[in-house]
Amino acid sequence: MKLLRVGPAGAERPALLDRGGVLRDLSGLVADVDGHLLADGDALARVAEAEAGGSLPELDAGPRVGPPLARIGKIVCIGLNYHDHAAETGAQPPSEPVVFMKAPDTVVGPEDTVLVPRGSRKTDWEVELAVVIGRELRYAASHEEAMAAVAGYAIAHDVSEREFQIERGGQWDKGKNCETFNPLGPWLVTADEVPDPQALPLKLWVNGELKQDGSTADQIFPVAEVVRYLSQFMTLYPGDVINTGTPAGVALGQPEPKPYLKAGDVVELAVEGLGLQRQVFAQA
Amino acid sequence: MKLLRVGPAGAERPALLDRGGVLRDLSGLVADVDGHLLADGDALARVAEAEAGGSLPELDAGPRVGPPLARIGKIVCIGLNYHDHAAETGAQPPSEPVVFMKAPDTVVGPEDTVLVPRGSRKTDWEVELAVVIGRELRYAASHEEAMAAVAGYAIAHDVSEREFQIERGGQWDKGKNCETFNPLGPWLVTADEVPDPQALPLKLWVNGELKQDGSTADQIFPVAEVVRYLSQFMTLYPGDVINTGTPAGVALGQPEPKPYLKAGDVVELAVEGLGLQRQVFAQA
Repeated sequence: MKLLRVGPAGAERPALLDRGGVLRDLSGLVADVDGHLLADGDALARVAEAEAGGSLPELDAGPRVGPPLARIGKIVCIGLNYHDHAAETGAQPPSEPVVFMKAPDTVVGPEDTVLVPRGSRKTDWEVELAVVIGRELRYAASHEEAMAAVAGYAIAHDVSEREFQIERGGQWDKGKNCETFNPLGPWLVTADEVPDPQALPLKLWVNGELKQDGSTADQIFPVAEVVRYLSQFMTLYPGDVINTGTPAGVALGQPEPKPYLKAGDVVELAVEGLGLQRQVFAQA
Repeated sequence: MKLLRVGPAGAERPALLDRGGVLRDLSGLVADVDGHLLADGDALARVAEAEAGGSLPELDAGPRVGPPLARIGKIVCIGLNYHDHAAETGAQPPSEPVVFMKAPDTVVGPEDTVLVPRGSRKTDWEVELAVVIGRELRYAASHEEAMAAVAGYAIAHDVSEREFQIERGGQWDKGKNCETFNPLGPWLVTADEVPDPQALPLKLWVNGELKQDGSTADQIFPVAEVVRYLSQFMTLYPGDVINTGTPAGVALGQPEPKPYLKAGDVVELAVEGLGLQRQVFAQA
């Protein structure tokens, strides 16, 4: 299923994009798309039945698309998780996953405005596969146990300010948590519709020019290992999100003068099967 | 005012410790102690009036004390923010604040069990002054504007696993987000009762032995600067928490063999005016 949330920011309603491409209202059936829903197999089954039965009312396709997940608990991010991206930044491929965090308040919808922070000179793009957790997971003993906790997938744009991240005091989080820095969606695609998360092409364009053109096949630590690994260090809960890293092609990896983002730039992102994002950047 | 939340984990009710040391039920007056309440000056005034008027019902002092803040948005942490702690870790005092994050799901009550992670050999303690935000803050232009966004203060225990933090891949968050790693409380003391946040003694004992004995006067970046600075990199929202760093005396700073925590250890924390914490450590 393709779950989403549509409507004004902060007042989105749950929706479903059906197999025919028609937007359907879920608000009569579920309260929202959040960790509670993802942890509730019966509720998800009722949504699937309602879709199959054709009983869901159509929704006007006009409204804004919000992030496809409400009440996100935490966003855990994996750094340098593609061979080609590690190489372009001059880093050795890490021997175990590099972990940092974004606050859930950085999340916006897939077509919302993204703000270049005041004082920023190095705002950069990163297309990523986001994993959404649907079951509490502690100390997973196997990749199978880890994957059983995955509810679905979405596109995440892990917007990054490289000077704040790297040159301003040592920990990356400072360049990862600016407001609007995590567009998510358009859809949360349930895991049953993504049989192989390691075979997804990812692309990103800036002002129409293709900048990133990778595949999750190039991930150093695949999704199953990322989820298993993280559960050794923290408990994962329904409604948590994992940004699994970005392939090569970010501004940081280009020759000088690096083409960092500025107000007016348009960034588009695609991950196969997960939809499209498009953001116009503006000055904070 | 001393606001707190009492009751079983996940089902706490809002309460107040009055000037006479009597626990009072706030559940007839406010829904919870959270960002919504802290941003609502009228609601806080009603609580103050009810306390002054003696109309609040007494609460049985028996129940568990939970964390004093519900629905925390994010926890932003400052590293190496005391001269003596930077020195003991062998680090130069940072030229600007070092920033990392803890997930809100790490928060437990001040007397709840703290779990030593599986595989941990270096679980460490850190007593900290936590700042609670009560007003949205972006790009604060002054220390005055920053301080106007501070709703109050609490004790935070920034429990840390040093091997996970430092030796497992570069970013600190990996050693800061284990379950139960952020005891908070017992009280959220409103800012009007903490006239000078830079004059607070902080102490921490392990099994009765005094290990940390510092003062917020030794902070490299005082609260007003921490809040102003962070607002340049991220938006702060009501219900966000800032852990402002720890003074010297952590296990990491001791000679070998460093006395890291193990199951059965008892850690007690005190910050003047903000109450006491006491945790028994157990194995995850």
